[in-house]
Amino acid sequence: MSSIREAAKLEATRMQSVNPAQYFERNLHQLGFGDPEHALLQTLKELTDNALDAAEAGNILPEVKVNVIALDKTYDFSRLKERRISARFFKVSVEDNGIGILPDRIADCFGTLLYGSKFFILRQSRGQQGVGASAALLYSQLTSLQPAVIISKISGGKAIYVELKIDVEKNKPDILVMKETKWNKKHGTRIELITPGRFTARVERYFRELAIGNPHATIMVRAIKEPDGDPLEVKIERAIEYMPRKPLEIKPHLLSLDPGTLQRMAEMDKCCRTAASFLAKHFSMISPKTARKLLFHAKLPPHIKPSQIKADRIVDAAKKVNIRRPPLNVLSEIGAENLEKALWNIYPDAEFVAAHTRPPWSYRGIPFQIEVAVVYGGESVQRDVSERPGKFKVIRLANRVPLPYDSSDCLLYRCVGEVNWKNYGLKIGDHGTITDPIIFVVSIVASKVPYTSAGKFAVAHDEDIKGETILALQEIGRRLRMFLSRRRKIIEKERRYEYFKEFYKLISEEVKLITGEEVTPEVTLERLFEEVRS
Amino acid sequence: MSSIREAAKLEATRMQSVNPAQYFERNLHQLGFGDPEHALLQTLKELTDNALDAAEAGNILPEVKVNVIALDKTYDFSRLKERRISARFFKVSVEDNGIGILPDRIADCFGTLLYGSKFFILRQSRGQQGVGASAALLYSQLTSLQPAVIISKISGGKAIYVELKIDVEKNKPDILVMKETKWNKKHGTRIELITPGRFTARVERYFRELAIGNPHATIMVRAIKEPDGDPLEVKIERAIEYMPRKPLEIKPHLLSLDPGTLQRMAEMDKCCRTAASFLAKHFSMISPKTARKLLFHAKLPPHIKPSQIKADRIVDAAKKVNIRRPPLNVLSEIGAENLEKALWNIYPDAEFVAAHTRPPWSYRGIPFQIEVAVVYGGESVQRDVSERPGKFKVIRLANRVPLPYDSSDCLLYRCVGEVNWKNYGLKIGDHGTITDPIIFVVSIVASKVPYTSAGKFAVAHDEDIKGETILALQEIGRRLRMFLSRRRKIIEKERRYEYFKEFYKLISEEVKLITGEEVTPEVTLERLFEEVRS
Repeated sequence: MSSIREAAKLEATRMQSVNPAQYFERNLHQLGFGDPEHALLQTLKELTDNALDAAEAGNILPEVKVNVIALDKTYDFSRLKERRISARFFKVSVEDNGIGILPDRIADCFGTLLYGSKFFILRQSRGQQGVGASAALLYSQLTSLQPAVIISKISGGKAIYVELKIDVEKNKPDILVMKETKWNKKHGTRIELITPGRFTARVERYFRELAIGNPHATIMVRAIKEPDGDPLEVKIERAIEYMPRKPLEIKPHLLSLDPGTLQRMAEMDKCCRTAASFLAKHFSMISPKTARKLLFHAKLPPHIKPSQIKADRIVDAAKKVNIRRPPLNVLSEIGAENLEKALWNIYPDAEFVAAHTRPPWSYRGIPFQIEVAVVYGGESVQRDVSERPGKFKVIRLANRVPLPYDSSDCLLYRCVGEVNWKNYGLKIGDHGTITDPIIFVVSIVASKVPYTSAGKFAVAHDEDIKGETILALQEIGRRLRMFLSRRRKIIEKERRYEYFKEFYKLISEEVKLITGEEVTPEVTLERLFEEVRS
Repeated sequence: MSSIREAAKLEATRMQSVNPAQYFERNLHQLGFGDPEHALLQTLKELTDNALDAAEAGNILPEVKVNVIALDKTYDFSRLKERRISARFFKVSVEDNGIGILPDRIADCFGTLLYGSKFFILRQSRGQQGVGASAALLYSQLTSLQPAVIISKISGGKAIYVELKIDVEKNKPDILVMKETKWNKKHGTRIELITPGRFTARVERYFRELAIGNPHATIMVRAIKEPDGDPLEVKIERAIEYMPRKPLEIKPHLLSLDPGTLQRMAEMDKCCRTAASFLAKHFSMISPKTARKLLFHAKLPPHIKPSQIKADRIVDAAKKVNIRRPPLNVLSEIGAENLEKALWNIYPDAEFVAAHTRPPWSYRGIPFQIEVAVVYGGESVQRDVSERPGKFKVIRLANRVPLPYDSSDCLLYRCVGEVNWKNYGLKIGDHGTITDPIIFVVSIVASKVPYTSAGKFAVAHDEDIKGETILALQEIGRRLRMFLSRRRKIIEKERRYEYFKEFYKLISEEVKLITGEEVTPEVTLERLFEEVRS
């Protein structure tokens, strides 16, 4: 028996807390890092997300400069002789013209895991967790041992240069250098990391998709894929010259709030005197009158303190009181017209581009909005289709950010598979694959996107989101069918035109032979065209 | 310009740290909670994981009692009129005969996210992160507002009764009741939660699979699926009466360590005087001689302090010095014979059961071991096959824990699909589905299992793990082919036997008619059997 007691004591000596930096350092693959295929693209994705958010926070048309330069140094993911896996190191930098970061906040923004301005707020934005960019730093320093180099400048301030690493034991920045510097820019942020990875076709595709989700952004990518190789320069100019509507913050909605969250909000509230005013102030679509009704149905007096609320009763009462859906004008959709412009920008030789924007709706009390588009035909589409993996060729966007992985798990992808595209005139091959050269775009914007994982790879299943997406795809399908049937008729006419043109001389000779009537070939042709056109 | 400056200042006021409880509360779906399908099973899974680990820590044959009782109360996941989604609340309790928890540690173990004894240790165990059970508590209190009720007792100590909630703002336990109590048990832990979910066939299947991975455990499940319904009682007695080998802790291996981790270990080291002794003491398979060789190749003097190590140079040197693979005798595999016993226990009417254990191997410096099994034929297999989703019927186990979700993403599942089972005598239908009644078991044990997500749903891709799994499946395939060909022959013979039996009288009459020889039907039959048997 005493050995069992000893085991319990030994176990107790081993128990300790783990901080978020320690947790994510050991679980970087959950955030999309950890292997060469994913690491480089994930780094670029997290840094450009922040760059675009930083510009939009100041109502600035974003201009993002990305540099990816291969270094003459490799990283061994596995050093076993039998199975050595290595990838190249890249110097990655992303520079924006955003609002910049206050000098005393720069280090924490990048050097602390789970730190940021967006976590507690319900508002459409690319970043949500305060974990993406610092995870990119963590991965960089683990593999390259090099610090991150950051320059940031707020409007009217001095540019600040910072070199830092993350102190994993403390989950705090370890600042190596911090000084004022000269920077030929009014405001913005630039971050530079050394990180290992593979520069695949997926990386180039990512920036094209990013431009589709952000027609108001100019994106410049300069990449040197091999040391001393020729630079690849891609400049995607913005397709529209005005800012999208600014997304607004919303309050939580009683119809989907967990009672535990409501209870805690009530207990922690410091600003409201009564339960009624607390409900009216902190929740979506609750007027003072609705608040009183809620408390009445919950059998609670309206003048109790917020902390005396019984959350489960309020939540039950919410089913009886008519609470409207959340306000839906808080989102910033791409817009069908803008989406079409962005697609023509990327696929200038396409035969057909069409986009459709659904009105906003809500899932579990959170506003969202679906937009879809198709691009059909042309060489650039053909090329893109052949490169793209998966059964259907779908560009997925969530809050304007492309989702490059895990398509088969993603609701946005699966919705495309649920539509019977044969009904809309597309050619279907074996195994149900569409053989026409077509790319679908499915975009969701939401105050909070329901991702399936911390790495934000895929959108989770939800019936409301699914319903809206299918409706949008069916609408675009109808337009596609019209285009395809028109196209077919034109092709058919052209075919007949070519046929007649070739034989019209022969025909006029035949006519002469049979009727004796002398008609010129031109007249014959004209008469036949009449026939065809009718 | 000043508005851009103001935006930067506003952003700064919003920046703040997020603690792990706040993070996981908003991202419970990443841990497998958050919808009725997953929540109940995930709660049971996390609690039974801990129960089994607690028994094994004291070298005790585990006896786990699970109670799941439907309450007359539902939880609304969404309260929208148009799409109300609700599920029943269940009172869930899991009781073990493990070592118990020291009284002053009980609250932290369950009431703090990212707290535990296993995170910093490389050793085969079910829990790894210190997040599973506390996430189950978090979900329970968010939805039911009820505290968790825990009783724990160490050998020779008093039983302690605790009621607690997690204080999310502080990531600390909020202890409501803590007192000594009477408990008719020498040592162990019992935890009780109120949690919403759905009691599906998957839950029952989970416990059967758990018994397959843990033939040394007795598992008792008592479930009442509807209020006032009849209890479903399942008792799976242990199939073997001895403890599996105890898994051992290993040190990290230089051949796959990130240089950043090495650098930090060196800088934080407090026990070693020299770099050489540091390397020899804290890493796997490094003798003092190898340590000196490493430092020599890294162009570092052997007597420098650990903190003066250049991690990148050491890591490069590791490729030149011959460091052996990690010790492989640290794992606790199920064992082919035990796995077969466990399978006969669950599928007593099967026609064929076979298991195969590969020798241990390592991926990226971490030991792992693959075992596979097949169960063929019989009514219980047939029933299980028809209930189980997916193309192939695969029971996946990781460190003896069944993985109930995300099979198509899981390496263990995908390996089954990579084998051409037609070559091994199985019947293949349309779309490549196996039509025979067969269930595969694929199990990995490892000092650290590479899961794809925090919810531990699936095993990530790795070439070494894949190679070992395919080899194991091929071996089991060969045995399967022998069985199937023997089976086919027997069936064929039986068919011919039946045929002859029916017509032997006719034949003997014919023989008499043709040859005039008078033979009894019995003799005819015997002669014909001779023929068949030869």
